[in-house]
Amino acid sequence: MNEQLLFNVVDLAGTFAFAISGATAARRCNLDVFGILVIAYITACGGGIVRDLCIGAIPPAGLTDWRYLLTAVVAALLTIVAYRWVERLTYPVRLFDAMGLGLFAVYGAHKALAFGHNAEVAILLGMVTAIGGGMARDMLLARVSIVLQQEIYALAALAGAALAVVGEYLHWPAVWATWLPILFCFGLRFASLHYHWNLPRFGRDRQG
Amino acid sequence: MNEQLLFNVVDLAGTFAFAISGATAARRCNLDVFGILVIAYITACGGGIVRDLCIGAIPPAGLTDWRYLLTAVVAALLTIVAYRWVERLTYPVRLFDAMGLGLFAVYGAHKALAFGHNAEVAILLGMVTAIGGGMARDMLLARVSIVLQQEIYALAALAGAALAVVGEYLHWPAVWATWLPILFCFGLRFASLHYHWNLPRFGRDRQG
Amino acid sequence: MNEQLLFNVVDLAGTFAFAISGATAARRCNLDVFGILVIAYITACGGGIVRDLCIGAIPPAGLTDWRYLLTAVVAALLTIVAYRWVERLTYPVRLFDAMGLGLFAVYGAHKALAFGHNAEVAILLGMVTAIGGGMARDMLLARVSIVLQQEIYALAALAGAALAVVGEYLHWPAVWATWLPILFCFGLRFASLHYHWNLPRFGRDRQG
Repeated sequence: MNEQLLFNVVDLAGTFAFAISGATAARRCNLDVFGILVIAYITACGGGIVRDLCIGAIPPAGLTDWRYLLTAVVAALLTIVAYRWVERLTYPVRLFDAMGLGLFAVYGAHKALAFGHNAEVAILLGMVTAIGGGMARDMLLARVSIVLQQEIYALAALAGAALAVVGEYLHWPAVWATWLPILFCFGLRFASLHYHWNLPRFGRDRQG
Repeated sequence: MNEQLLFNVVDLAGTFAFAISGATAARRCNLDVFGILVIAYITACGGGIVRDLCIGAIPPAGLTDWRYLLTAVVAALLTIVAYRWVERLTYPVRLFDAMGLGLFAVYGAHKALAFGHNAEVAILLGMVTAIGGGMARDMLLARVSIVLQQEIYALAALAGAALAVVGEYLHWPAVWATWLPILFCFGLRFASLHYHWNLPRFGRDRQG
Repeated sequence: MNEQLLFNVVDLAGTFAFAISGATAARRCNLDVFGILVIAYITACGGGIVRDLCIGAIPPAGLTDWRYLLTAVVAALLTIVAYRWVERLTYPVRLFDAMGLGLFAVYGAHKALAFGHNAEVAILLGMVTAIGGGMARDMLLARVSIVLQQEIYALAALAGAALAVVGEYLHWPAVWATWLPILFCFGLRFASLHYHWNLPRFGRDRQG
């Protein structure tokens, strides 16, 4: 399979899974049809838009590339018209979501490096690309960020972005530098889902 | 009446109405006087600031143009000192709000096109200009976005922005390309308010 | 003591105090270890990042300068491993927080002026530098912004930023133009904490 094609397929599959998670949450919060579309789109593209603003890539790719918008809209419409069916898809959606997490983190880190920024910027913005949309979704739905609470999620994104930067600095071959960090992030995320790995927490109550 | 003058009047009337809605909501949430001013300003100018960041118009107009700040501050102070009077103004405030919605959406779309961006960017950022401030207001007040729940609101903004882009691409005369989309968005919003048109929704509970 | 060194010490002490307040709030909201780190970092650096996006300083300093990241991480880890000890430090943390408030407001205003923007931009973004991180923290934790509710806080930041701009326009000597506004903001904030000064508020209920 052509490598660029594989990259594009995983990219859009991740966008699709992110949009599903946004649409599902928005539907539960009683938003109207159009609100569900908006939240789905922001969940899928919000992280990349913040990354592009921070590295100076104007206009952000999430706003100019119709494929992301279309993918998010299709995912949202599916969630609206075939909710019971989508609910039964929990497993594949989580699979795509974990793949998207890895790919977004690695792609975000690479893009920051390509724009000439340093390793710290690349790692932080790689993570932002992967989890920023989910954080925006939760802020818009007025709930505490799930990406900062549930099984290893944000940390997996950070690990993927960091490994991508290491790969660039060590001049790994392009295929390795792209797919090894993606698989590492995906594996860490998926294992933590499967085995219910959680980072320690200390809270006594939800009211700050 | 001079056309540019009319545009400016509607622009500031919309800013005023947006700021009133922000100040009213902030007052109900028990913010202090200065917090009410901050929320009023963000509600009025937040959408335009995000648009300007995304199209590369630095610094954002909402930060440099003292007329927006002054309008927002006056609206907030009115809401503070004459709350009962402002409460009775629900109808004109909604009228201005709907006018502001149309004007912000169309102006945002035009500005994005003027900065050389494509139709998708223009339509999305036109909508962001119109509803972004309200979304920021609701996030700061920790409640689910009302603009994504109530009668047709965000969709009216999208429709106005899309019609504005169509007008530009078809080279309509400037007056038509500006005012027809504004009136269309305004009419759609106001009719949906008057007749209680709502988009379908599916939620069972507010807790995601 | 060397003036630049003093500036850096206060800058990092403020970052530390801001990160502590973020980490403490995140811990109470039951976030996991990594979530606490993320919130601490955003509380400390979020305001400066928004300022840099608005003035066109790409990439934002909060993302490139490892000292801020390290300071935030250390503060968060301390809050995690020595929570009881940190809780007893309320007084010094508030002291540092008030110093950070003043320094962030003044530094933010100076940076905006240095990038060629006008007085309004400088004052508004000075305030954003100082309170933006706290606002982001509260949005992520799904609660109404505390910086807009508690004793004089946001207003003290605005006053500091405004005085800094006045000092620049009147060509005060650099030391005065830097430290007088910082001390003014710090004094206003600390006095309002000590004497429980609050701006008036009007709310009847928290539900908007």
